[in-house]
Amino acid sequence: MAQLISDRRDVDFVLHEQFGLVDHDKFAEFNKKTVDLIVSEARNLAIKEILPTQKPGDEEGCVLENGVVKVPECFKRAWELYKEGEWLAMTDDPEVGGQGMPKMVGIAASEYLVGANSAFMLYSAMTHGAAKLVEAFGTEEQKALYMKKMFSGEWGGTMLLTEPEAGSDVGALTTSATLNDDGTYSITGSKIFISAGEHDLCENIIHPVLARIEGSPEGTKGISLFLVPKYLVNEDGSLGDFNNVVCTGIEEKMGIHGNATCTLSLGEKGKSIGTLLGEINKGMPEMFKMMNEARAFVGLQGFGVATASYMYSLDYARTRIQGRHMVKGREPGAKSVPIIQHPDVRRQLLNMKAMVDGMRSLLYLNGKCSDLMVTAESDEEREKYSDLVEVLTPIVKGYVTDKALEVCSHGIQIYGGYGYIKEFPVEQLMRDSRIFMIYEGTNGIQAMDLLGRKLSMKKGRSFGYFIEWMEKTIQESKSVEGIENITASVESAKEKFVSTAKILGDRARSADVMNAFSFAHPFLEVTGDVTMAWMLLWRAMVAAPKLVKKAGSLESSVVAEKAGKNKDVAFYAGQIRTAEFFINTLLPSALAKMDAIVAGDRAVEEMPEASFGSK
Amino acid sequence: MAQLISDRRDVDFVLHEQFGLVDHDKFAEFNKKTVDLIVSEARNLAIKEILPTQKPGDEEGCVLENGVVKVPECFKRAWELYKEGEWLAMTDDPEVGGQGMPKMVGIAASEYLVGANSAFMLYSAMTHGAAKLVEAFGTEEQKALYMKKMFSGEWGGTMLLTEPEAGSDVGALTTSATLNDDGTYSITGSKIFISAGEHDLCENIIHPVLARIEGSPEGTKGISLFLVPKYLVNEDGSLGDFNNVVCTGIEEKMGIHGNATCTLSLGEKGKSIGTLLGEINKGMPEMFKMMNEARAFVGLQGFGVATASYMYSLDYARTRIQGRHMVKGREPGAKSVPIIQHPDVRRQLLNMKAMVDGMRSLLYLNGKCSDLMVTAESDEEREKYSDLVEVLTPIVKGYVTDKALEVCSHGIQIYGGYGYIKEFPVEQLMRDSRIFMIYEGTNGIQAMDLLGRKLSMKKGRSFGYFIEWMEKTIQESKSVEGIENITASVESAKEKFVSTAKILGDRARSADVMNAFSFAHPFLEVTGDVTMAWMLLWRAMVAAPKLVKKAGSLESSVVAEKAGKNKDVAFYAGQIRTAEFFINTLLPSALAKMDAIVAGDRAVEEMPEASFGSK
Repeated sequence: MAQLISDRRDVDFVLHEQFGLVDHDKFAEFNKKTVDLIVSEARNLAIKEILPTQKPGDEEGCVLENGVVKVPECFKRAWELYKEGEWLAMTDDPEVGGQGMPKMVGIAASEYLVGANSAFMLYSAMTHGAAKLVEAFGTEEQKALYMKKMFSGEWGGTMLLTEPEAGSDVGALTTSATLNDDGTYSITGSKIFISAGEHDLCENIIHPVLARIEGSPEGTKGISLFLVPKYLVNEDGSLGDFNNVVCTGIEEKMGIHGNATCTLSLGEKGKSIGTLLGEINKGMPEMFKMMNEARAFVGLQGFGVATASYMYSLDYARTRIQGRHMVKGREPGAKSVPIIQHPDVRRQLLNMKAMVDGMRSLLYLNGKCSDLMVTAESDEEREKYSDLVEVLTPIVKGYVTDKALEVCSHGIQIYGGYGYIKEFPVEQLMRDSRIFMIYEGTNGIQAMDLLGRKLSMKKGRSFGYFIEWMEKTIQESKSVEGIENITASVESAKEKFVSTAKILGDRARSADVMNAFSFAHPFLEVTGDVTMAWMLLWRAMVAAPKLVKKAGSLESSVVAEKAGKNKDVAFYAGQIRTAEFFINTLLPSALAKMDAIVAGDRAVEEMPEASFGSK
Repeated sequence: MAQLISDRRDVDFVLHEQFGLVDHDKFAEFNKKTVDLIVSEARNLAIKEILPTQKPGDEEGCVLENGVVKVPECFKRAWELYKEGEWLAMTDDPEVGGQGMPKMVGIAASEYLVGANSAFMLYSAMTHGAAKLVEAFGTEEQKALYMKKMFSGEWGGTMLLTEPEAGSDVGALTTSATLNDDGTYSITGSKIFISAGEHDLCENIIHPVLARIEGSPEGTKGISLFLVPKYLVNEDGSLGDFNNVVCTGIEEKMGIHGNATCTLSLGEKGKSIGTLLGEINKGMPEMFKMMNEARAFVGLQGFGVATASYMYSLDYARTRIQGRHMVKGREPGAKSVPIIQHPDVRRQLLNMKAMVDGMRSLLYLNGKCSDLMVTAESDEEREKYSDLVEVLTPIVKGYVTDKALEVCSHGIQIYGGYGYIKEFPVEQLMRDSRIFMIYEGTNGIQAMDLLGRKLSMKKGRSFGYFIEWMEKTIQESKSVEGIENITASVESAKEKFVSTAKILGDRARSADVMNAFSFAHPFLEVTGDVTMAWMLLWRAMVAAPKLVKKAGSLESSVVAEKAGKNKDVAFYAGQIRTAEFFINTLLPSALAKMDAIVAGDRAVEEMPEASFGSK
């Protein structure tokens, strides 16, 4: 079995040719050479150590015995190596034990790690998110006790949010906190769907818990955040008593079997002691500060399985011999050919590639925005990149994970019957991918976030930055030979998108809000489609002049002939073709969807509830 | 857990209001009363006896021990009751042991049975298909030995087609047949992916096997069909020796765990004796005669899981309380509401309903065409309905199963995190559904069949019948009050579709064939979309006058008010709203896709193979 995750040439292209590394003192040590080494190291770790845990992790899953959750045995060595390499905090401040890498570089490294085993990497992401909460809101004492051990991966972390009656509606939670005489709190309640909630990878697990202090207001305004360790930690950092965070069950899921999804009970079999993290009743805004990172990670998980599924399918399509060529196969004595020569297989591969390439650019760009926030010379600039991250987040999480499932489904289809059996990796990738559309805010929530918050944020200024950047690429593309048609198509799509956004945004703030939100998800879809078109045009814009240089011509027969011999010609030609495919064949449907959004059919809002059906 | 599969009101609507039963002597005993009883009986069996096997079937799966495959234990009782009820041959000729039901009625009954457990019903479908082969091509002796026992379900049946190197390319198969002195053949070879290939539901299994007689031509022209029983059958019908059809493995799959997907070895551990079925070297055309039925069944499987997923999601959306109403929730003291009140949940439900309703109509119509073939007064009429089945088959199989996966994915999304865990039924439905896009000819093959064969069949006459029927509905709709706008939209969509079909069909017969077939699947998609629009318009056309009668008005506030109290008002209003939703919101994307097909971008054909990527 080939071990495939990502197209390294494409990773390098996005890092160095499409976007370029951020040039700033702050990231001085991360020059091209170092960055390439980091990506190579991540790739090595991913392929040699993490990928071998993918299938066993799926088969063994996690086992709960007497309150103890055992992860798949092979995860332990992988975790040790992951810790040793200091990957968990690769993009964090050296002061907290991090490596200080640019986020964009961290994403490049992570795409290999996540693509190798998204369930395994969820232990890391949960820990990282929890550590960031401590970094952002912890007292000096909390930081000293927990933070570095979390950033190193010695201790794990989670996020205890969901309850049986409080999923998307967090404000309905009932977990309670009671102040003790010593300033700590006793936490009581039950939490469900806790990723990495209990496991034996780490000697301790630090749970940030959302709970309501007795007497606090109802709803989200009365929620506070607490740190509740699995084992209490003594002042010298040694472990004390078990803190009665009891795992009462783990879910049997469609996929990501390697990650334990736990039901945790607090304060029911003895006291569970927590300390307040941040301010009383500010739990929701505090948690929201970490949300962009968490959602970007889920987008990365979607992308990771998508790129892996594409790489496997491509390899299979090149090597699987089946059926004759549609034209050449008519000649007498024609032999069967690799299935990549069949039009429908090529169509599916190109569909996957367009999505995977576009996702990669989008995710790296989102990472680069975070880097540019750090290196910004002015508050305005910093705010601009922060706003861009706000706008990009629902696309990165919602659109990417929707499309990841589609890509993974194509992957199975290319394998045919072999795609449906567990012997080949694409089957698991699709099962794993289905959760990414749900957790960290369902994609319906992402769509509401985009339409209801991001579109109108700061009176539309944030969204304006997003459109301006798109326009900049379009303007630059206009002077590039060979991409005139797709540039014009993206420009008119952008214009239609801007007017659609205006109309729907106005509707969302009018009395017609129910109609507007019945189109929230279609609006997320077209936003994503236009963003993909933008990313792919940008790639083509970078590639076209280089292709002229390498192939001497953009003429398709010349390019085709040289592509087989020259890797650069093949690569750059692929950028243009992929952009053409997406923009000419898929983007038109998005334009029609915009028309439908503007038309605003009322069936969704007006359908009587009884009309949906009976048993 | 509610036990939900199908909306009985909708089943009755399609049978009696949209299409009507075939009125003919041949089906005289199947009047409305009898048909309703049959559907009720199927529903009872499905819900009481088959549905309880769904989850255990998934969990236990099939087990291979020493060449013997054990099905999930609970399947045995269900199979006995299924046999007792004579369901397997419900639509077959009484002469062969069938009940002689109209196909359309059989489909209505089957939608419950398949929706209850698609893996279980695959044992029945494989047996039925094999029995039909014996009926169509068997000698009197073969019929006497095998046929009735297969139609009764006493013995099972299969179809041994696929080999490791011969999947979509059947002509590449290497299983061989050698003539014995007594006129039988010794069959040697290995077959894979054999659904219901070996199991302990029946005392014998009759395998139709595709093999090449020594000396026959290469490719599909040299393939013959043989009957190879698991146990040889003596002249008196008693079982003889084991015939060395050895199960060497069963696949571990994403879903349909209850059906054994077997690797079978013939003639390797002793002789496997078969008798020729039909004529030498005519195996492929013989098998093709059964293909429409097999493909219709797979479409029915897709539809079955889709309707079940919809019914569960609808029930969940009506009972799950989470979050406040977007508008009314702003009032002080507003309580949380059932999630069916949230716009994005409604959108998804309506999307599911539009698909499920449209699929039901399409499948029943396809069944009715078969009935009208039987009752046709002239050869012309018979040929017309036969042609319609030919044209509808790739849509029924390809489009329906593509959309079934989408419907099942929506089902999971509506459940949120609960959708991803095995505790709720929608998780399994999605896993099960993924195979339907692959077996019985991948959907890529269906798309090629539609574009390459069905569009040009009989110089376009067959396709013409399909368009004419669509036109008839549109013309009739024009005089119906309240559906003027959607009628006009479907008419213009139909016109654009006809011109797209003409352009793409011409291209497929030109030197530009590779380009044409790179749009084969998009063409299947738009064909399906237009067909759905047709089906939903037809429903609205039937419903609108009845709604006026029941509600006194088509005005939405009047209808909404009465829908809560009057089931008919709710039902008929739902038909119109669902048609509006699909036609106004989803159909526009199909029109844009047609434009893209006509534009004929060349990226898929011209993308250099090396440009798809490297490792």
